[in-house]
Amino acid sequence: MRFLLAVGTTKTAEIDGISAAGTTPAQMRHTPPADAEIVTYGTTVTAPVMPVSPAGCPTPAVVTRAVRELRDFAVASIDAGLAAPTAAPTISIDATPGGDVREPTPVAAAEQILESARALGQALPEDELVIGESIPGGTTTALGVLAALGEPYSVSSSLAENPLELKRAVVDDGLTASNIDRGESAMEPVRALRAMGDPVLATVTGLAHGGLTAGKSITLAGGTQMIAVAALLRHAGVEDDLRLATTPFVAADPSADIAPAAADLDLELTVTDPDVAETSNEILARYEAGEAKEGVGMGGALMLAEQANIPMETVRDRISSIARDLTANPPTHGS
Amino acid sequence: MRFLLAVGTTKTAEIDGISAAGTTPAQMRHTPPADAEIVTYGTTVTAPVMPVSPAGCPTPAVVTRAVRELRDFAVASIDAGLAAPTAAPTISIDATPGGDVREPTPVAAAEQILESARALGQALPEDELVIGESIPGGTTTALGVLAALGEPYSVSSSLAENPLELKRAVVDDGLTASNIDRGESAMEPVRALRAMGDPVLATVTGLAHGGLTAGKSITLAGGTQMIAVAALLRHAGVEDDLRLATTPFVAADPSADIAPAAADLDLELTVTDPDVAETSNEILARYEAGEAKEGVGMGGALMLAEQANIPMETVRDRISSIARDLTANPPTHGS
Repeated sequence: MRFLLAVGTTKTAEIDGISAAGTTPAQMRHTPPADAEIVTYGTTVTAPVMPVSPAGCPTPAVVTRAVRELRDFAVASIDAGLAAPTAAPTISIDATPGGDVREPTPVAAAEQILESARALGQALPEDELVIGESIPGGTTTALGVLAALGEPYSVSSSLAENPLELKRAVVDDGLTASNIDRGESAMEPVRALRAMGDPVLATVTGLAHGGLTAGKSITLAGGTQMIAVAALLRHAGVEDDLRLATTPFVAADPSADIAPAAADLDLELTVTDPDVAETSNEILARYEAGEAKEGVGMGGALMLAEQANIPMETVRDRISSIARDLTANPPTHGS
Repeated sequence: MRFLLAVGTTKTAEIDGISAAGTTPAQMRHTPPADAEIVTYGTTVTAPVMPVSPAGCPTPAVVTRAVRELRDFAVASIDAGLAAPTAAPTISIDATPGGDVREPTPVAAAEQILESARALGQALPEDELVIGESIPGGTTTALGVLAALGEPYSVSSSLAENPLELKRAVVDDGLTASNIDRGESAMEPVRALRAMGDPVLATVTGLAHGGLTAGKSITLAGGTQMIAVAALLRHAGVEDDLRLATTPFVAADPSADIAPAAADLDLELTVTDPDVAETSNEILARYEAGEAKEGVGMGGALMLAEQANIPMETVRDRISSIARDLTANPPTHGS
């Protein structure tokens, strides 16, 4: 098994109020590099920020790292369009940051990214891939892709108050700019990604497609962005078994409808509960209250912990100690 | 502890007869990408070659991978100027391939590479770094740097018959083209690297320097290229403790003088013997007969095995099985 983390950025994330993946829009480009460093090293290294929401909620990377420290699984990050450097080792697929979804073609290289990621997913030697993501603003581009494909599902948010009205307005602007109607890109995933997507959606779709072609077991580790990936795969005619591993925080989000979407798309849905009620874990309580909720493969990591019979109490304790160290030793490198 | 693998290329490697790190000069640019894949995954992934010498001797990457499978240490590869893609995750320090050492300035960006690598080596969270390399033609540029610094040491070779006359002629041409006399760059490591080095030497020197600045324990894992790195560090005024971990195959090379050079440079020399005499291991027998001898951190990996009390018989068996799998399943991707 290998855990793949696709990390990238878009101009869409800079739209005010769209994402909680950073304290400010200007800081958000450092969130995916920092997330990759936290999963790799347990701490930020050269990224100049500790990724927190505007309200100070720590990144779900701490959950994925916690499980990784308890169950030593192999990780590779994939540069799916980073806009800032990272000290995490990344696999290059020649992706560049995405544009603003309100432009006509925010991911002009969608086809090339899909193809490079597909070749990589097919060539990797492991029988099982668990694929997570970190891209600020990613639920908005996911909503855009779903609209282009004509899928009715809504999306979740890293903010406690999902700014769905704003996302819908941005997606409407994007459809207009791209000159496509809702559903007009059905069965045309490349077109949907080019016009309304982001490079991380293209990368994860390609990785999963390639892995499935090679007969691997594929788990999409995430929330509604991974619903968009699954929709892209189904619209590409991929009918293989596919698992979605997510958190109870996304599964419980009434704005997200994840269970019916997963059923529609013929996904095996795995929701792993870190048993927040059992504890006073501050971070998980914030996730339960609606902040972050998912990201950086958190749901997949929790699934991996459960598969290895690691008690959730142990996972929660490790989450707390990693978050405490990160908060006590914030990055001192310039920004 | 983390094992860092600096991988890069130069035009120097294309000089006919200079290196055994690939079947042909044209194939050599794929050797560092393939070595990084073998250490990371245990097999080549997208690299189109199985790195072998012109005589068919497998890459020392199999030794490093073997130890890694037996003692699960953390690895990060660093792109120190790759000229071909790799599916191994790599840390970017914005290095580009080196030129031909017979040009005036084969590593124009030496200072920037040194600085980026230094910042990385300092920032990495581990207390101990073991640093290896893969760069075809690397002993020639090492000889060039030693000449520029005015150090008298000779270098080893990945070929059973060290083409020292050719290397010396190439270095003489390089000194002339760079318009510097032997020893004229003493105490000027940046100038020596710019005029006579390669991007991997610059990267390893920077990583080690940064790590030492942060108080880390540093092991240079390799042969005479690492002697050049140690010389660069001493000429930069770095007086910290420094270890060189190498193989008995380099240590026994009469063309290399590694023990007196290590003593001169105040290095703690660790030579770890995989006990070839005890066995009929075909690969190690070829290394003992003078092919490959070192590279991809082999000497450091053997040291790590010994530190962990892994029996050398176990290491040898694993080397054989990895090499067998690699030979049985050569890359099928295009070249």
